[in-house]
Amino acid sequence: MRNILIIGAGRSASSLIKYLLDKSVSENLHLTIGDLSLELAQRKTNNHPNATAIQLDIANVAQRQAEIQKADIVISMLPAFMHIDVAKDCVQFKKHMVTASYISEAMQALDAEVKANNLVFMNEIGLDPGIDHMSAMKVLDEIKEKGGHTILFESFCGGLVAPESDNNLWNYKFTWNPRNVVLAGQGGAAKFIQEGKYKYIPYHKLFRRTEFLEVEGYGRFEGYANRDSLKYRSVYGLDDALTVYRGTIRRVGYSKAWDMFVQLGMTDDTYVIDDSETMSYREFVNLFLPYHPSDSVEIKLRHQLKIDQDDVMWDKLVELDIFNPNKIIGLKNATPAQILEKILTDSWTLEPHDKDMIVMYHKFGYEINGERKQIDSTMVCIGDDQTYTAMAKTVGLPVAMATLQILNGNIKTPGVQLPIKKEVYQPILKELEEYGVVFHEKAVPYKGYK
Amino acid sequence: MRNILIIGAGRSASSLIKYLLDKSVSENLHLTIGDLSLELAQRKTNNHPNATAIQLDIANVAQRQAEIQKADIVISMLPAFMHIDVAKDCVQFKKHMVTASYISEAMQALDAEVKANNLVFMNEIGLDPGIDHMSAMKVLDEIKEKGGHTILFESFCGGLVAPESDNNLWNYKFTWNPRNVVLAGQGGAAKFIQEGKYKYIPYHKLFRRTEFLEVEGYGRFEGYANRDSLKYRSVYGLDDALTVYRGTIRRVGYSKAWDMFVQLGMTDDTYVIDDSETMSYREFVNLFLPYHPSDSVEIKLRHQLKIDQDDVMWDKLVELDIFNPNKIIGLKNATPAQILEKILTDSWTLEPHDKDMIVMYHKFGYEINGERKQIDSTMVCIGDDQTYTAMAKTVGLPVAMATLQILNGNIKTPGVQLPIKKEVYQPILKELEEYGVVFHEKAVPYKGYK
Repeated sequence: MRNILIIGAGRSASSLIKYLLDKSVSENLHLTIGDLSLELAQRKTNNHPNATAIQLDIANVAQRQAEIQKADIVISMLPAFMHIDVAKDCVQFKKHMVTASYISEAMQALDAEVKANNLVFMNEIGLDPGIDHMSAMKVLDEIKEKGGHTILFESFCGGLVAPESDNNLWNYKFTWNPRNVVLAGQGGAAKFIQEGKYKYIPYHKLFRRTEFLEVEGYGRFEGYANRDSLKYRSVYGLDDALTVYRGTIRRVGYSKAWDMFVQLGMTDDTYVIDDSETMSYREFVNLFLPYHPSDSVEIKLRHQLKIDQDDVMWDKLVELDIFNPNKIIGLKNATPAQILEKILTDSWTLEPHDKDMIVMYHKFGYEINGERKQIDSTMVCIGDDQTYTAMAKTVGLPVAMATLQILNGNIKTPGVQLPIKKEVYQPILKELEEYGVVFHEKAVPYKGYK
Repeated sequence: MRNILIIGAGRSASSLIKYLLDKSVSENLHLTIGDLSLELAQRKTNNHPNATAIQLDIANVAQRQAEIQKADIVISMLPAFMHIDVAKDCVQFKKHMVTASYISEAMQALDAEVKANNLVFMNEIGLDPGIDHMSAMKVLDEIKEKGGHTILFESFCGGLVAPESDNNLWNYKFTWNPRNVVLAGQGGAAKFIQEGKYKYIPYHKLFRRTEFLEVEGYGRFEGYANRDSLKYRSVYGLDDALTVYRGTIRRVGYSKAWDMFVQLGMTDDTYVIDDSETMSYREFVNLFLPYHPSDSVEIKLRHQLKIDQDDVMWDKLVELDIFNPNKIIGLKNATPAQILEKILTDSWTLEPHDKDMIVMYHKFGYEINGERKQIDSTMVCIGDDQTYTAMAKTVGLPVAMATLQILNGNIKTPGVQLPIKKEVYQPILKELEEYGVVFHEKAVPYKGYK
């Protein structure tokens, strides 16, 4: 039996655990599932004979190290900042490790030791980061292999509500951490490179500079720029590409409507509202509008944002019930962003029967034999239900597959890694197709300018 | 002879030093003027027999303490963060101290010791803070004394170019620190209270929510909100006032035009532009506009900001020469805000013959015998030349006057102070009138709503 220790049994662990349990007989696996909540860990074992649930507090050094010593490989599904203690133990006890998180500086600093012990620490192997790296590198390597030179790379990803559950005017529901949605794009200008020129978009313009994306069978989407599009420019070998842009996918119209909150100042997370606990939704909106003794909150907002009375933007606001004078915020010392999150959660929470959807869209422009060409690669994944969501599948399955490939010696390059090598992306992308995560690549006319 | 030590002989010290030298014979004063630059200190003595210039490095503890020991009172015109070492010495050697800066936490922490030694540490006694405190408290106290209750307080101040030197489309030139002008309003939403309701304006809307101010003989101005209008609410005794608002004065149209830079993202000081040194002004503008292979920077900017071709906003931009492809920024690793400051400095620097102007405007709404009334108080001060500027006069004269009043025992309440007591503001406001700093108070109809 090979022992796999899984630390953290939250939402994103369900597909991961199911995959490994389904393979546990044929692959001789035993899973130890540890979580601060024993009940949560137990539920995830599904009474499978090859799984053991334990209550695990990673702050308990003795217990943590004892469990890690018993394992052959450790999967950490903890919040990103908590990986490092586990990682240091894995170095000490010579265990492989897998995470779906960005490589932190502390994690990167272990690289030499990890290599010296011939261990694989595979990170960033969830959805985004993860499937985005793999599906992009596959096409980038293919272009290079046939003698092409990539000059344009655009990459978009979004977690959305599935078409069958898409029943509000925003075409959006929270399928992951709502706080990240409210704070999206904040903390500095979005930076990217277009046709060889750096471009910057300030936060208050971010949601007005979108790009349309058409996905066959699913219609039109839009993308707005991520804060730092250039993070993987060198890692992907794109230092001399003319255009490098990464963005977030929403349904068309979402960004224009979201911009209303940005313009009003409701997404600000830098200060607290004094009497937020007893304030009504309507009073919250009025905080951001000029005082008037008789004009209504509605007319002041319409005027401030220049919303015509037949504009669907208005209906989107009304749908959220933000003008309700009787709904009370009920959060003490909350920031505008926290209050907005509360208001949106009333409307944008998935119903028990709702399904989520992941959409990914890459554009690769390249030059070959003096010609300019382009490949667009798209992937849509729909959740099965509220346990095996599209998010849980796309985050958890690559983690599970990488774990098994490392155990079986197929992924063996030692060090602190991310999945950009063919050794990693080829088997995993292929296997993901069996689980409905399929990329459709299509030659299209080159859309760059130069 | 009473010895006054003045530390820092920069721009704001000229009127201060002239005042004290003019009084030095009748008042038996000797001035020691210390600056890192001996030449600067010497120039400020004007060869007056009662003044000595010294080279003074406040990091040199022995020299600093020796000079402080020789003085009867110390004026620190250093940058605010440098006062504290001087202040601690003043406590140790039992010397009074005067500054024009906001009271820092470290300064406030000395209060008990300052009181125990029966010393006066007078701070915030320049223009803003300074004259604003004094002129406001005078009227607030008068309202209280006649049995009134203040329900509205609005206070505006601005450093502008004098009408006779006002010859550009922005009706503005830099008369003080340009960096503060470029960064004005940043770092969080502006907060104030209007008719009993908190109001918040996000930075990207700040320059579009202005208020007009009419000053007799000088025409119309506008004010935009300061970040924290409520800082002095309690100090001024306005905890139950319905409206408390503080703002910055500009000529009408400035804010709407400035908002173009805000909207483009050019005032951002949080990141550096990679190749700023060799970039042209035109390329800088293009950073914030979408890429297009043939559309000009001009048409893209017009479209982005929705500027009609006959709109004076356009002429304001052209006047700054920001579309020039040949003017090079020449600043290494500069932020957008630093680059914008450079561009504006080309156009907004005072000519040798130019004069500056300070404008202050207070509104006091109050209730008396069941009636609502209002007093507006305005002050305009024009500079004499580029040495005795309006800024130097309004910052330096109150400092100088307070120093003499402390020496003469007229201001004697011990502790870390700001000038809100009648003992302070009454003699100083009266004397300021002799120097052309005159407040005109006028009863007007109450402009509040409630």
